[in-house]
Amino acid sequence: MTKHFQRELDKIKKHVLSLGTLVEERVRMASRAIEERDAALAEKIIKSDYEIDEMEVVVEEECLKVLALHQPVAVDLRFLVAVIKINNDLERIGDQAVNIAERVKTMAAKAPFKFVFDYSTMAQRAEEMLKMSLDALVNFDIDTALAVLAMDDEVDAIKNEAYDRIKATMQENPDRIGYLINLLLISRHLERLADHATNIAEEVIYMIEGEIVRHGKHAL
Amino acid sequence: MTKHFQRELDKIKKHVLSLGTLVEERVRMASRAIEERDAALAEKIIKSDYEIDEMEVVVEEECLKVLALHQPVAVDLRFLVAVIKINNDLERIGDQAVNIAERVKTMAAKAPFKFVFDYSTMAQRAEEMLKMSLDALVNFDIDTALAVLAMDDEVDAIKNEAYDRIKATMQENPDRIGYLINLLLISRHLERLADHATNIAEEVIYMIEGEIVRHGKHAL
Repeated sequence: MTKHFQRELDKIKKHVLSLGTLVEERVRMASRAIEERDAALAEKIIKSDYEIDEMEVVVEEECLKVLALHQPVAVDLRFLVAVIKINNDLERIGDQAVNIAERVKTMAAKAPFKFVFDYSTMAQRAEEMLKMSLDALVNFDIDTALAVLAMDDEVDAIKNEAYDRIKATMQENPDRIGYLINLLLISRHLERLADHATNIAEEVIYMIEGEIVRHGKHAL
Repeated sequence: MTKHFQRELDKIKKHVLSLGTLVEERVRMASRAIEERDAALAEKIIKSDYEIDEMEVVVEEECLKVLALHQPVAVDLRFLVAVIKINNDLERIGDQAVNIAERVKTMAAKAPFKFVFDYSTMAQRAEEMLKMSLDALVNFDIDTALAVLAMDDEVDAIKNEAYDRIKATMQENPDRIGYLINLLLISRHLERLADHATNIAEEVIYMIEGEIVRHGKHAL
């Protein structure tokens, strides 16, 4: 591997991590916006999503450039292809933060309703999964990636709990169904967000093992 | 371009189209399962999803192999990277068909409920979008890809209509909220399915123009 090639790979790693940090921040903002019914914060998430979109484009262009110029093979090729796909997942996590922000805005415009559900745990777990999956990527660390896969079950369990509680609350308060549907969708958006983190972890494992775990064939 | 390389590219095109055909079939099955509340058909969709997963892996491996062996540049490189991402979207469309099938199974286990909504139009539109986006890919046809983007608005409009009607029906029938939530989620799954078709079309445009339309910057 030439020094120049190594420098290019390091730059890509750095940029995908920067994008990851930005996306993590948006997830935290979305979590706070839910908790505080904060329409202004939600608006900020929506308005600044273009930054994530732009960074995604930069990372992909860098990957394409390195593929064309250095024509890597074996693990370097797999790394670059993994980054292209992970980059895409990061951008879609940003989209989920935007989706959550849209829901919060809608809810903030309606009369408040006393329904307490701890979405912050779900959001925090998703954020941890995202952080861990990116650490796994840059450190080629399969154990951390596998730990992310296990965490996804917890997020699913919280989502199911949210579903049961929201459904029961709808039955008791049919006049607040519109409001509660927003909360139901928020839990779905958080779940999809965690799913994207899981996709990233699976890409990392696939890259390292050159083996397919994406479709549940990996013995955990 | 060597003859061998051209043959490899043709093979990849053929395989990604086969995967597309398989995925289209699953979307049609899901649509029929919704309409007929057919739990057996839903089960069939769930059980056979592994076929899509396996084909996705084959296509990606083929792309990696061609990238490593032929080290393509320019449009061929962009084509292969586009296929890797499109392949991923196809697999996720298959996942949405599975998600719909899960909802149908849940609904089929509950007492029937008279709620008529024409999901078949939404499913058909999504299926058309999928077919058109894949045609656009193999023919490098930007006009067809742009037409797919325009169709996505129609699917969104149908989803919003479903939302309004389901919400109103929930208010009138709070005892059937569980059943109706499943219908709400089905419309979301169909929307995501159409979103993936839109992603494919955007990838095609991006590949052809080497330009970024993914984030709404393309003048339609």
